[in-house]
Order: sequence, then C-alpha cells, then structure tokens
Amino acid sequence: MADTDLQNEDRRQVCFIGLGVMGAPMAGHLATAGLQVAVYNRSRGKAEAWLRAHPGHSIVELRDARKMSTIISCVGNDQDLSDIYLGDEGLLAHLPAGALVIDHTTASADIARQLNSAAEARGIGFIDAPVSGGQQGAINGALTVMCGGQEPHFRQAQAIIEHYAKMARLLGPAGSGQLTKMANQIAIAGLIESLAESIHFATVAGLDEHAVIEVISKGAAQSWQMENRHDSMIRGDYEHGFAVDLMRKDLAICLDEARRNGAHLPVAALVDQFYGEVQQLGGGRWDTSSLLSRFSSRKD
Amino acid sequence: MADTDLQNEDRRQVCFIGLGVMGAPMAGHLATAGLQVAVYNRSRGKAEAWLRAHPGHSIVELRDARKMSTIISCVGNDQDLSDIYLGDEGLLAHLPAGALVIDHTTASADIARQLNSAAEARGIGFIDAPVSGGQQGAINGALTVMCGGQEPHFRQAQAIIEHYAKMARLLGPAGSGQLTKMANQIAIAGLIESLAESIHFATVAGLDEHAVIEVISKGAAQSWQMENRHDSMIRGDYEHGFAVDLMRKDLAICLDEARRNGAHLPVAALVDQFYGEVQQLGGGRWDTSSLLSRFSSRKD
Amino acid sequence: MADTDLQNEDRRQVCFIGLGVMGAPMAGHLATAGLQVAVYNRSRGKAEAWLRAHPGHSIVELRDARKMSTIISCVGNDQDLSDIYLGDEGLLAHLPAGALVIDHTTASADIARQLNSAAEARGIGFIDAPVSGGQQGAINGALTVMCGGQEPHFRQAQAIIEHYAKMARLLGPAGSGQLTKMANQIAIAGLIESLAESIHFATVAGLDEHAVIEVISKGAAQSWQMENRHDSMIRGDYEHGFAVDLMRKDLAICLDEARRNGAHLPVAALVDQFYGEVQQLGGGRWDTSSLLSRFSSRKD
Amino acid sequence: MADTDLQNEDRRQVCFIGLGVMGAPMAGHLATAGLQVAVYNRSRGKAEAWLRAHPGHSIVELRDARKMSTIISCVGNDQDLSDIYLGDEGLLAHLPAGALVIDHTTASADIARQLNSAAEARGIGFIDAPVSGGQQGAINGALTVMCGGQEPHFRQAQAIIEHYAKMARLLGPAGSGQLTKMANQIAIAGLIESLAESIHFATVAGLDEHAVIEVISKGAAQSWQMENRHDSMIRGDYEHGFAVDLMRKDLAICLDEARRNGAHLPVAALVDQFYGEVQQLGGGRWDTSSLLSRFSSRKD
Repeated sequence: MADTDLQNEDRRQVCFIGLGVMGAPMAGHLATAGLQVAVYNRSRGKAEAWLRAHPGHSIVELRDARKMSTIISCVGNDQDLSDIYLGDEGLLAHLPAGALVIDHTTASADIARQLNSAAEARGIGFIDAPVSGGQQGAINGALTVMCGGQEPHFRQAQAIIEHYAKMARLLGPAGSGQLTKMANQIAIAGLIESLAESIHFATVAGLDEHAVIEVISKGAAQSWQMENRHDSMIRGDYEHGFAVDLMRKDLAICLDEARRNGAHLPVAALVDQFYGEVQQLGGGRWDTSSLLSRFSSRKD
Repeated sequence: MADTDLQNEDRRQVCFIGLGVMGAPMAGHLATAGLQVAVYNRSRGKAEAWLRAHPGHSIVELRDARKMSTIISCVGNDQDLSDIYLGDEGLLAHLPAGALVIDHTTASADIARQLNSAAEARGIGFIDAPVSGGQQGAINGALTVMCGGQEPHFRQAQAIIEHYAKMARLLGPAGSGQLTKMANQIAIAGLIESLAESIHFATVAGLDEHAVIEVISKGAAQSWQMENRHDSMIRGDYEHGFAVDLMRKDLAICLDEARRNGAHLPVAALVDQFYGEVQQLGGGRWDTSSLLSRFSSRKD
Repeated sequence: MADTDLQNEDRRQVCFIGLGVMGAPMAGHLATAGLQVAVYNRSRGKAEAWLRAHPGHSIVELRDARKMSTIISCVGNDQDLSDIYLGDEGLLAHLPAGALVIDHTTASADIARQLNSAAEARGIGFIDAPVSGGQQGAINGALTVMCGGQEPHFRQAQAIIEHYAKMARLLGPAGSGQLTKMANQIAIAGLIESLAESIHFATVAGLDEHAVIEVISKGAAQSWQMENRHDSMIRGDYEHGFAVDLMRKDLAICLDEARRNGAHLPVAALVDQFYGEVQQLGGGRWDTSSLLSRFSSRKD
Repeated sequence: MADTDLQNEDRRQVCFIGLGVMGAPMAGHLATAGLQVAVYNRSRGKAEAWLRAHPGHSIVELRDARKMSTIISCVGNDQDLSDIYLGDEGLLAHLPAGALVIDHTTASADIARQLNSAAEARGIGFIDAPVSGGQQGAINGALTVMCGGQEPHFRQAQAIIEHYAKMARLLGPAGSGQLTKMANQIAIAGLIESLAESIHFATVAGLDEHAVIEVISKGAAQSWQMENRHDSMIRGDYEHGFAVDLMRKDLAICLDEARRNGAHLPVAALVDQFYGEVQQLGGGRWDTSSLLSRFSSRKD
C-alpha cells in the first residue's frame, strides 16, 4: 500500500503513545480538534485518567496500534523508543506502508536515525519532532516543534502538529529535530547559570535584586529566562517549570553527541555538573533556574 | 555656599570630561539640548574634533573646571578617576560646595565610594552612573543609566542624564550604579558563551544555523544577544559592538568585587579566561560575541 | 564441575583475548613465564605477529576458547566485552563451571557487573582488572592492577597477574576495579591541566621553564606527571604515552558513572572538553600531557 | 660606600621584619646560627614573644632599621611592602648603599620590580624570595626559596637563606621569584581539585578511599598532595597546612599577572571560585585540601 493510498480519513484516526505532563495535553488538543484519538501509556492509570477527561476516545494496547496509520509518541528516552518501535515486536515492523510516525520525545539524534532507517525500510514516514515550550506550552497548544525528516512527511505531520504548536519547522534530515533541540538546551544552560550568578552577586552586594533586573533587562543582558524567571529565583521558588532531572538527561544527550561530532561545550559540561549539585540539594524536580540554589543554600 | 544657592542657570553650564566613543556623543546630546558644554579630553585632538562638530561651545583645562558647578565624566578606569578627582590637585578639592559630579565611567564600587566620600566632605553631590547600551545607544541617546548616590543628587542628575538616556534609575547609595553594571556584565558573560557553544554545535552538527536560531529564539533560549548577534556570529564578523578588551576590564572589576563581597562567579571567571584566548587570537577589539572565534579558529 | 575440580594444571593453559599495545606484551609475559598461551585477536594479523614472537604457543578462534578454564581479555570497550562474553554465543554461556575470567579492559562498572552476574550464574569466577602503567608498564611487567570481584577468584587471578604486574589489589565486589581506575583518571585530568597552565604561565612570564620545574617539583606542587612529563611538554613533544582519544573514552566512562552515582566532577568535565580541543588540533593520539598544546598552538 | 665596603662583620647583623607563622621560625634559625637578629613586627606582642624565645637579640622600630645593612622581610602583601620600603619614609630611601634586602613575602612581580628599582637607584641590593614548604618547612629550616634579582646579590643572600632553606635558586631578574611562586600555586590549584574529585568519587562509589589511594598513588596520578593530604582529606580534617584565605590571595596575584602577561588559566580561575565557596563554608583558615568539603558538606 503506497502512501497515497492512505485516505485522508485514515489520518483522522491517530494513536498517541505517552501521556506524561507533555503528552496528555497534546493528545487532548487532538481530541478537541475532532480527531479520533487512541491512547497508550505504559502505566494504564494515566490512560484511564486521560479517557475520563476525553470521553468518546479509546485506550489501546501497543499490539493494537500496529494497524494504525498515524502514530505520535512522547515518551522518556532512547530506550523507551527502542522498546516501542524497534525489533521484531516493535511497531515499525508491523505498521502499514504509508503510515506516519511523529516522535516528540527529546532523545538522541542516533535513535532518530535508527527509527528513520527502520521506517524507511518499510515505506513508513518518520519525523523526529522534539518540542520546547514546557508543560505550559503543551497545555496552551503553543509549543515550538523542531522537526527532522523528509519534506513530504513533514507536510503530513504539520496537519497534526498544528493543533498544539505555535511553530513547527523542518530543519533537515532525520535527527535534525533532535540536534536543534540540543542547540536549544546548550544555549540555555550557561545562560541560566550566568543569570543565577548575576542575581546572587546583586544579593551579596546588598542591592534590590528586582530593581537591578528591571534595569538590566532593558539591554544586552536581556533574556527570556531573565524576564520570566527572575522573580521566582529571587524568591527561591523552584516548584514549577522544566525539571533539573530532565535538563541533565538532555545535557547528557548533548554532551554525548558532541563527543561524536567534535563540538566543544566547556560551559555546558560545567553547568551540567552544577545541576548535579542541585540534585544533591534535593532539587531534581526543581525548575532549571534553581542553579541559584547552589549559592543561596550556603547563605544561612 | 549651600546646594540651593546654585542657581538653575548654573546647571545650564556643564563640564564634560572624556570624549571617547561614548562620551563624545553624550556630550553632543547636551550641546544639542541647549546646555553650554565645556569639554576636556586628555588628548586634546578629540576635544578639538568635538568642538568643530559643536561650534559655540568650549574646550577647558582641568584646572579651569574647578569653578564649575556641574561635572560629568566618562573616562577609562579607576586610576583616571583618581587622577582627575582626588588628591590636593583633584577637582573634588576645589569645586564649589553644591556642585554636582556625575560619573559615567565603568569602574569599581570602591572608587565610587571614595569619590563620594571626598565629595560629601565638601558638600558636593556625587552620582556614580555607569551606562549600558553601547556606542549605538550613546549616539541614539538611548542609554540605560545605573545610578548610585543620594536621592536629591539623583534628581538633579536626571535633568542632565535624560538628554542621552532612555532610562535612568537610582539603585542605592554611592557605588550601587557600579554594582548594578557588574551584575549586568556577569549576566552577559556566560550567556554569550552559551550562545557561542550553541551556534558552534549547530555548525558541526551540519544544521542551518540561521534556521536553528529562528526556531529556538522563540522560546526559553531567547536573549537579546541571540536576536541581535547571531547573524554576525554566524558570519564570523566581530568588527563592531562592545570590545573584548573592555569586557575583560569590566570582568576584572566584577571578580575583584566578588573577592571582597564573597559572591561566587564560576562561569564568569571561566569565560573571562576564554576572552583572554580571544585576545590572543587578535580579538581585543572584537565584539564580545567573538567567544565563538575560539572554536571556529580551529576549524581550518 | 566445582571450582576445586579444576586441576592446577588447567590454570597453566590460558586464553588471552586482545593483543593491542597493552595486551600483546602482557600475553608475552605469560608465555615467557612458562604458561601455555592461546591468543585471539579480532584482526588476525596481530595474533600472527604475536605468535611469530612467541613460537610454540597458538592462535584460537573465540569458539575454541569456550572449553578453556582461564580467559584473560584486554579489549577496547563495553561493546567489545558484550560481544565476546554475553548472549547465547558469548563465552560465558559456554565456559566450564569453575573457569576464571580476568578482564583488563578499562570499561564501565556496569558491564563489569553484567559480566559478573552472567559468570556467577554458571559458576564461573570473574575479576574486573583494569590496569595503569601504560604501554611501558606492560612491556616491563610493572603494571598496577585494580581488581573487583570475590576474594577466592582474586587469589586465583593473582597467580596469573603477577607475571606482568608490580601490584595487584582487590578493592571490592565486581566493578570495583573499574571504579578505582575511574578515580585514577579523575585525579589525573585536572592535575595535567594545572601542570599545563603552570608551564604555560612560566613561558609567557619569560622564565626558564626547566629551572621553574626543578624548583617547584621539590614541594607541594610535585606530581608524577610533573617529574615525568615536564620535559616533553616544554619541548612540545607529545608522540608518546597515553593517548588523548583513550583518555576521553575513560573520562566519558567516569562522567557517565558520576551521572548515576551522584558524584560531582566539575574540573574533570571541563578538562574532558579541553581534550576535545586537543583532538581538534590533531592530537587524538598525543599523550595526555598535550593539554598544553591548546595554549601553545596559539603562540605563533 | 660601595658594596665591597660592607664588612663581613656587618652581614652578621640582620633586621628581620614580620614574625608571622613563617617569619618567626625563620628569624629563629638565624639567631640559632649565631647571627645577631633585630626583629620588628607591626603588632609588638609577637616581637616580644620571639625575643623571650631568643634572648640576647633585640627588638627595633622600623626607623632604627634604616642604618642596618641587611634587611629580611616576610609580611602580608604588596601594601605592607609599599608601606615598609617605599616613599620618603620607606626603608629604601634611608638604608646605606651596599645594603641588601631579601623579601620572602609572596606578593606581585610588580611590587618586586618597584622595590628593586628603588633599591637600585640607591645602590642597594634586592632579592625577591618567596618560599614554599609551609610552616613545617619554616620550623624545620627546609624551605624552598625562589629568587629573583642579580647574581651577586643572590650570592650574598644565599649565606643567610641557607640557614632555613633546603634549596634556593636564582630564576631571573627581579620579580622572577614571585613569578615562579605563581607557577607553583597554579600547578597546585587544579591538582588539589582533581584529587578532591577523585576521593569524592571513590566515596560515593562506595569504595574504601584509603585502599584506592594506596593503589593509584603508585602511578601516573601520584602527587605530593595525594601522598601527604589524602588521609586528612578522607577524615575531613582541614585544621592544618596552608590556609584557603592565603591561597586565594596568591591566586588573585596569579590571575592578575596573567591578565597582564596574557597567560590562560581557566582551571586556576575556576578553582579560585571554588575556594570562595570553601570560605563561605567557614573554611578560610582550612588547609587548601579542603576543596573536598564543597562536596562532602552536602552529603548529610
């Protein structure tokens, strides 16, 4: 069955795998948009909770997803993806030709390329599509989606992604979405550390941190993090946002890829270690802006 | 002679010391605004050039500035300030009581406090007022001015500063302007390094750097530097902006102050060393975004 | 067949897998000591070269090693070990109960534990036994061997290891040899960087580097690296010693383990990135002391 | 009066300035050796205590030292040296031609050059001679002395220095002693951090740290610090040795000199910041090996 044989009707039925803090609202937007959504989650409780919030849709087992033509996933890591998609029992060995797989997991470029190869071998389209925008962006349907894959598959994927994204862009062949997400995390790591050092300096210098940020955010020191995180940082409130544990997972992927492609990431590597100290302080689930806690924890 | 004895008329006559790339346009805005500006520059050539551009004003010697009631300076460093203002021959030993000194030099908080003490002892007002916004901000009269000193002196200073600033704020007692400028530079140092690492990673990963930045600048990685410097960074063009030599001077001030106040600046200290490598590459006058050149210089 | 059933005679016949720059001389010491050595190397050429140097011994295929009671390996990485030992076709599924496996590969603690589990399940002894001392130590039979495993197996292993080691020590259960090797590499990374910074500083300060080292090596700055590497570092000669590529492989293992056990390694992580810059300079095979080349390469 | 006019007898009378933990035992060795020692200390109590331990010698005021022909100093920093030696009231304006000044203070190369210029202008010899070996080395008369200056003055100085040194070496013109001491401290900074990371890693890996050090100290990871400090580090005992506050003073001098001579010191700069965190933990007077406390302080 060729790609073109898949009726438009088929694309109205999708299988969404992974109902975490990101996946659940994303799948919800598809349901709200009128698509027929079959969900799967490793721990069934989350699937049931999602279904109660979106009656009229369905829960499937992975085995049942094999006959569907559109699969969307947002799971934990490379190993999860390997378990779901690869090997004799993996979905890519069973999906119909012409099917489309969109993976929103932040994972390695390597697994994206493996998934793509396995998909290509069976005439299945694959788009690696990690997102940024956090839980809030998922809930508001305002994610940024960084895609890797082939243009025709990307165009098909857009019709789905648009329900929860404010922007989606194809950045190159399979893996390019993941690589772009890595560039994103690399840019953030040292930026937050510098912001933390700046606020920490203002504190020990006896300045009013809010006044300082108000002034310096008008110029060359401005950043999204400065504008959106300074207030909670100054209050030492980190119970929100993007978790340190996830950031370290992502930075491990970045540093691993850099080991292969030869990129130099001295500050990203150092800040990754500092995040390890935040974990030690009990901050594994704190927002990434908690780099400041390394300093303030010592002030008592 | 008390402060209030100084006629408003007196404040229309100002002495501007230091006509570098920042000072010259700042003094120009005052002239344009109708103030009577007497300028002084250590190397007389710059003063003469300024006067040709602003006929009807005047050049003075430092000794002649002693009788003026409003002094504005924008010079190189602590030593320059000490030479101009302190000691038996310094201005602060001779200015009339009620005079006002506004210093726009980026310098230590320590010298600001010394100048303030010397000023206070003779009934002279002092405001340390380092700026951000760069040469372009000075030319456009759109600087951000971070002030330290007493409220009444700040109010007097505002009437002058407003001619070249889009924002001026009093952040605390003498030295607070300098400390806020330090917080600004600390926030910038690691931010630019992270941006450089991100673009460098995108390059070696084979991505289209412009496309990558277009996508990631929409979210949590966004910064003024990313929006305003990515294009020239990708092109390897650093012949503009804020010079590495000046950034190292500023970071030395930050690190020195941190040594006194106990602030921890691991990434600022590290990036300061990386800037040293840029200097070695011949980039002392390059824009601060040239941290990227440390990586790209090795790519041939 | 219980362990004690293995006759002493059996331990006189060993299979040595991996004849690289370390393995070849180690196997040679065993041959010289009168043991009967059957060698295997993935690329057969090295096995043949070894055999020419040690006539009277033999080359085997991995399949033939299945019946031997003593296996020694010194290969590249975790994957190599997994290929040789694990799975249905791996040696651990076929060796006789009571056999002993000694692995000298520098690898993860995780693979050591996996190999140990697979060995234990079949009544086979396993010792992870990474070495230090370099190629010279292997040639001179003067290696230091860091062992993990059980005491009885360690005692058996000692009888073999003693032929090429000046010291062998059991440091704990399986994996402890690898963990100790990691502690070794972590201690070296920043030590060499500091030595490089020190020599570099002496150079730009215009000092006679040899005289400086002669003086400072008498006290608290002394290290094996300073005494044994300063001369070649000052000459910029790095064509010897322990290769940067291998050091980065080892540091990746350290950083990966630290990610799991929560250790903080800021300087090791940073120096690992600096080694990446040395690789970029063409120094993948240079001695680890080539961290100095990052600075000196810029001096022209 | 030319140098040669100074009778040997004159050199048997020396003035020793600064009776801290280093200076007191150094002056004591001179007294024991039969020289006539006149001591000066800013806080007179220490001079009196020294005199009680060394009856038959004397206490002088700085003013009285002006007529002496041999001055030895071991004080706190550049400012102390400037106060004692420079200006109209400084010793160098009053000592007899042919006098010799030996300064054991760890200070900047810049002040050494200034002192040397002032000395030269009046026909006085000057040797900058910072030491290593610590309090124990001073007590045992086993210091290493790094000298800068002219050969003839160095030879004169040796006759005195030999009473408390195991090694003294002339490394170049004035300032070279200080620069060599800087190279020493630079080599130590990252070395200790790496040792701390190594021990910390061994701890969280569940290894017996003593056993680990016993093994790895046999090879390429060996250092004086590892051999002499591992035991107290493992016990968390830092109440001895060379104080963190002094190390930061020294690293500030190194980083300042590097700013001038263009040396790159990324790890020294970073470790200097980590020492700042140790100060915050209350460790300003702890031994430099207390870098480990940054990690262990978080383990409770």
